[in-house]
Amino acid sequence: MSEPVMTIAELNTFMASAFPQMQGEEKLTVLEEVSPMRARVRLRYSDRNLRPGGTISGPAMMGLADHAFYVVLLAHIGPVALAVTTNLNINFLRKPGQADLFAEARIIKLGKRLAVGEVTLVQDGDPEPVAHVTLTYSIPPRA
Amino acid sequence: MSEPVMTIAELNTFMASAFPQMQGEEKLTVLEEVSPMRARVRLRYSDRNLRPGGTISGPAMMGLADHAFYVVLLAHIGPVALAVTTNLNINFLRKPGQADLFAEARIIKLGKRLAVGEVTLVQDGDPEPVAHVTLTYSIPPRA
Amino acid sequence: MSEPVMTIAELNTFMASAFPQMQGEEKLTVLEEVSPMRARVRLRYSDRNLRPGGTISGPAMMGLADHAFYVVLLAHIGPVALAVTTNLNINFLRKPGQADLFAEARIIKLGKRLAVGEVTLVQDGDPEPVAHVTLTYSIPPRA
Amino acid sequence: MSEPVMTIAELNTFMASAFPQMQGEEKLTVLEEVSPMRARVRLRYSDRNLRPGGTISGPAMMGLADHAFYVVLLAHIGPVALAVTTNLNINFLRKPGQADLFAEARIIKLGKRLAVGEVTLVQDGDPEPVAHVTLTYSIPPRA
Repeated sequence: MSEPVMTIAELNTFMASAFPQMQGEEKLTVLEEVSPMRARVRLRYSDRNLRPGGTISGPAMMGLADHAFYVVLLAHIGPVALAVTTNLNINFLRKPGQADLFAEARIIKLGKRLAVGEVTLVQDGDPEPVAHVTLTYSIPPRA
Repeated sequence: MSEPVMTIAELNTFMASAFPQMQGEEKLTVLEEVSPMRARVRLRYSDRNLRPGGTISGPAMMGLADHAFYVVLLAHIGPVALAVTTNLNINFLRKPGQADLFAEARIIKLGKRLAVGEVTLVQDGDPEPVAHVTLTYSIPPRA
Repeated sequence: MSEPVMTIAELNTFMASAFPQMQGEEKLTVLEEVSPMRARVRLRYSDRNLRPGGTISGPAMMGLADHAFYVVLLAHIGPVALAVTTNLNINFLRKPGQADLFAEARIIKLGKRLAVGEVTLVQDGDPEPVAHVTLTYSIPPRA
Repeated sequence: MSEPVMTIAELNTFMASAFPQMQGEEKLTVLEEVSPMRARVRLRYSDRNLRPGGTISGPAMMGLADHAFYVVLLAHIGPVALAVTTNLNINFLRKPGQADLFAEARIIKLGKRLAVGEVTLVQDGDPEPVAHVTLTYSIPPRA
């Protein structure tokens, strides 16, 4: 079990400097917790994530899961901006309600070249998940 | 091999009435072609789809693929607004360039309860795909 | 959280009568535990599961994961022989050693028409998983 | 578009020497065709691949797809025995009949570190596929 090497504050600073153009969008997500092999990110409920009918859109859910795993990965390998998603598999389980969405990300394998993880998307007070995601990141060789 | 039961014009009218709030976003996508078991959708290159650095974001690619398969599915089963994505698996193959992105969607299986398809994302004049997606839709029972 | 409706003994009896021809192969797997939304199945290490070099083959791992999820699903919905796998996604994480393999299966969603689950494959005394699987079963309408 | 660098005869010789223990099982598969970015492998219908009820088992289908992509990959990168599957995603589309099964494998991306492909499983004379697979191989660094 690997310990995080970056704090929430360091991760927030890195994300803000690596992705300055995302500041607008980033304000919708809040990194709430980092622990060994895990992180929790909140997506604030907002018109900007909505699909007609008032539910959070599929792309917003996929983007949140991808973002949460990127953050937990950086937390454990340090600020490697070039890590990229190579595969993402999502099962949509039920329609999300009109409320904040939480991504509970977990690193399943942290290899030298590949990292594999899973992200469960849940809503406050509801034990039934909204979606379940597994994904793979390719990690560039270290200098 | 099943023939489409809706034309491009009918599909555009249905999408506009079923998802009136998406008109803004929808203008970014253009349904270019519908043929037996296939459709082709263009995503116009725009600041709104961009990730920092000027490339089209992962969520935009996933959203385009999902949209394109939804359209080809409706084209073959008629206007069933309630068909929903249950699974989406995407392999990101290379960084997209600063140009329009095309989704070539194909129905692999059209069952009563489930439809399975694949979508290849490509850019103009480049034979190497940007991403490859497979996905499953659940089709509600007909009234 | 749903409780199991079948015991280990009932599941073993059902599997033996529904799949009499698999008795030979079945002896390789042992259903060790059933609890709410979970089951644990052991695959005995054997020449029959091996890939050259002495490691457990990929197909044997996929088959074990599928079997374990089928069993945990039946444990919760009762003996529905016709439930079928519609999607299986596996990430191979590291080469298994020459030892028994355990499938820890968990139901993520138990719907009327679809069930979604995950299976982690591990070996004795090793916290690092060998493979991680998500899968979907289609459940036939009840009579 | 990359040309194959190995012939069918060379691939058969390599497979026989790299996996001598698989000779028994290997006789069930026949490499029928290799062309740019593609290969076709036949799995002979046999009691050894059967699930009770006389249909080809899920693990046999996954194993065939994995084998077919391994062969088409080697055909294009040369005899690299250590290429390994990292991800496999399969959609089961319909029950196979009691007949030979064909795997039509295609390389979608051939990178330095990762290769991505798809495999369609079909049966003689039937245009509807039995299963569709996408998979990723990790390619070891060249000496």
